[in-house]
Amino acid sequence: MDRTRIASLYATPEAFSGVEVTCAGWIRSVRDMKNFGFVTLNDGSCFKDLQVVMNRDQLACYDQIAAQNVGAALIVVGKLELTPDRPQPFELQALSIEVKGESSPDYPMQKKRASREFLRTQQHLRSRTNLFRAVFRVRSVAAFAIHEFFQTRGFVYVHTPIITASDAEGAGEMFRVTTLDVSNPPRLEDGSVDWSQDFFGKATNLTVSGQLQAENFALSFGDVYTFGPTFRAEDSNTRRHAAEFWMVEPEMAFADLNDDMVCAEELLKYVISSVMTTCPDELDMLTKFVDKGLLERLKHVATSDFARVSYTEAIQILEKAVQDGQHFEYPVSWGVDLQTEHERFLTEKHFGKPTFVTDYPAAIKAFYMRLNDDGKTVAAADCLVPGIGEIIGGSQREERLEVLEQRIRDLNMDPEEYRYYCDLRRYGSCRHAGFGLGFERLVMYLTGVDNIRDVLPHPRTVGNADF
Amino acid sequence: MDRTRIASLYATPEAFSGVEVTCAGWIRSVRDMKNFGFVTLNDGSCFKDLQVVMNRDQLACYDQIAAQNVGAALIVVGKLELTPDRPQPFELQALSIEVKGESSPDYPMQKKRASREFLRTQQHLRSRTNLFRAVFRVRSVAAFAIHEFFQTRGFVYVHTPIITASDAEGAGEMFRVTTLDVSNPPRLEDGSVDWSQDFFGKATNLTVSGQLQAENFALSFGDVYTFGPTFRAEDSNTRRHAAEFWMVEPEMAFADLNDDMVCAEELLKYVISSVMTTCPDELDMLTKFVDKGLLERLKHVATSDFARVSYTEAIQILEKAVQDGQHFEYPVSWGVDLQTEHERFLTEKHFGKPTFVTDYPAAIKAFYMRLNDDGKTVAAADCLVPGIGEIIGGSQREERLEVLEQRIRDLNMDPEEYRYYCDLRRYGSCRHAGFGLGFERLVMYLTGVDNIRDVLPHPRTVGNADF
Repeated sequence: MDRTRIASLYATPEAFSGVEVTCAGWIRSVRDMKNFGFVTLNDGSCFKDLQVVMNRDQLACYDQIAAQNVGAALIVVGKLELTPDRPQPFELQALSIEVKGESSPDYPMQKKRASREFLRTQQHLRSRTNLFRAVFRVRSVAAFAIHEFFQTRGFVYVHTPIITASDAEGAGEMFRVTTLDVSNPPRLEDGSVDWSQDFFGKATNLTVSGQLQAENFALSFGDVYTFGPTFRAEDSNTRRHAAEFWMVEPEMAFADLNDDMVCAEELLKYVISSVMTTCPDELDMLTKFVDKGLLERLKHVATSDFARVSYTEAIQILEKAVQDGQHFEYPVSWGVDLQTEHERFLTEKHFGKPTFVTDYPAAIKAFYMRLNDDGKTVAAADCLVPGIGEIIGGSQREERLEVLEQRIRDLNMDPEEYRYYCDLRRYGSCRHAGFGLGFERLVMYLTGVDNIRDVLPHPRTVGNADF
Repeated sequence: MDRTRIASLYATPEAFSGVEVTCAGWIRSVRDMKNFGFVTLNDGSCFKDLQVVMNRDQLACYDQIAAQNVGAALIVVGKLELTPDRPQPFELQALSIEVKGESSPDYPMQKKRASREFLRTQQHLRSRTNLFRAVFRVRSVAAFAIHEFFQTRGFVYVHTPIITASDAEGAGEMFRVTTLDVSNPPRLEDGSVDWSQDFFGKATNLTVSGQLQAENFALSFGDVYTFGPTFRAEDSNTRRHAAEFWMVEPEMAFADLNDDMVCAEELLKYVISSVMTTCPDELDMLTKFVDKGLLERLKHVATSDFARVSYTEAIQILEKAVQDGQHFEYPVSWGVDLQTEHERFLTEKHFGKPTFVTDYPAAIKAFYMRLNDDGKTVAAADCLVPGIGEIIGGSQREERLEVLEQRIRDLNMDPEEYRYYCDLRRYGSCRHAGFGLGFERLVMYLTGVDNIRDVLPHPRTVGNADF
């Protein structure tokens, strides 16, 4: 079957004027006006539908088609007619229509608006609605833009491992991965589980970050990035947390914290521009029905400089705000970790644009971040964006072997577990930096959708692993 | 630091002729000729090294640099001089050199060739060798080429879930994912593990394939693909099996088995051409030191049509070969699954090029493959390539609800578990097809490397989850 995508028709309608084409897709609506009728067809190749016109006199199957339910799959052969005077730029005058797969009146994706909660129970069908059609295309276009950004800049894409025997930075609760019989695991003499009999010869978990392994490759290739799934077994049932999510982690040799922030800002702007260019119809719909300020905000961010403020200054701003009557649930003082309410105040109210907060207290940040000369803060930079809070967490890494080893000892971590990591500081160490971008938070930011469950194809959260 | 990548110098040497540039990288070798010396520097931006020339008279730190060990990190400021009469097209005349990180004589990546087995114990450093520098850049370039291929054709990239409650097609042993205390799990009255108390409220595993979920999105978007990690807990310690590997799975609505094979062939050719264009130095090295026939084979495949043969004909070819004296370890007759030795005979000896074998017996293939009209074979197509065997497994999917449900019952599978999957046949079903490409096998094919452990950044195999 020589099939024409509806996207191709919209790309160059003039080229198809008067031409006979075959389109295949699904019915979004059918209207029977007795002597003629309309089928709105979508084939998923673009956001827009194709208007198919049926003339009873010329179409033997008119009644069969007019009786079809929403969701049925059709193959339509027709002649394209430009319609400059109508709302849609062209129509397809049907010559023949074949029903490939019927639908039924109980089809759950009817035209009337269903709640997002209901649609979460229909994850296998919800991408047929306007909302999810838009969200998942934006997700795909954003993912490709990320690859494009890094590859055209010479970064090497590294698939860091998903299964890991290390507990990384102790960044959060982890999922255990095992082939042992959980109902009757092999045991040591003291009764504890004998993990040496597990598949990998030791206890393993799902990764929480590919950063430490990405550093191995940054110190060979200079510039690398990861883009893969990461996992947190946190029992937090919020709009922003999923147990399985995708993360982008670039790592750059001979780069400092400033280079890191420059890269992060350029990446976000690149992805936003790319989505604005590729998905105008999707962004229009999202702006109309999901988040009125979306398009304006994206335009603003793509063209303005991000704010930068040190953690110490940020605390002063927040303390001043409290004095001026701003209420926060969590108290603010130098040394505390910023809560989402604080982050959103800074980026939404105080700066009104994406904001890097830099140089956090060492005590609230990970062991691998480079100690500043003040001895109490580290060269970290989190990027906060309006509506979301933290979307990027980055840092310059500690490249000095003795400082790193001291920090590992101070935190009572096992130096042997970080031997390879320390080797990078033993053989040709250099300044380097990187960051982690939570991909779902980025998609939420790009679409205005406020629940992480609605930007993941099949979300995994506490109590939910359906589909 | 305004740093110039060595790749940029090689891209347009003339533009840098006589220009002062700053390069940062790692020492691959140092030669001290008393009054002048040479440092070979690599910064990972390209396969080639930069030749740095040191003149004792003009470089205060001459002795310090000449005494450095292989692997040390340097920042070199120098003037680029074109050298059309020498083996390398240009040299950098050093004006100043700064040591950022020393190395030591016990640096494991010395210039002498280390065995691949030894290098597998040094996964954090092995990407600094020529072999792994080549392999992992080819891997990255191939991954991007795959995204490019699909995105420029309008496919939507779908992140199918890694953690799953289904056992997919029963395609192989799975890894259990749990947050239960394995040493003391909660139990039901009958003593079995109470999985309802696990993180997701039920027992979950790591996915073996994203195909079934990809179909959800193909029947909305038309053309989609996945590219993510998949897992098999098989206790097979071979050169071709890893417990964690990446898979590419396109899925196309309104496509049949022929469309599927056309797509697979175009994809392979696209990736090969892309790697040949982007990585000529890497392929040269791999052809010289790993697989003498590599470059010629890739060129041949990129420009010739793939062979196609039905399973039934393939069996006849193999039976004929046995009659003519060919020895196989496993016997051949209609109904048996093809072993790697059979696959390699077909693609290497009989056809001498990549070969699709189609229409396998239903009994040896998965439940979702479309039953052919003969009632005993299915519309499957495996692509076999010389040196590897099967690299792609694809099929047209069973789109007829009653045939699919019958097959599920025949195989004693639980229809309730496939309710969502059957829904796709209930509401607007249509012909569709897809395939799975094992990404590591592709990288092996592209590099001539014959062990999967050497194409994965940090391989996970039975007994091994280091790094």
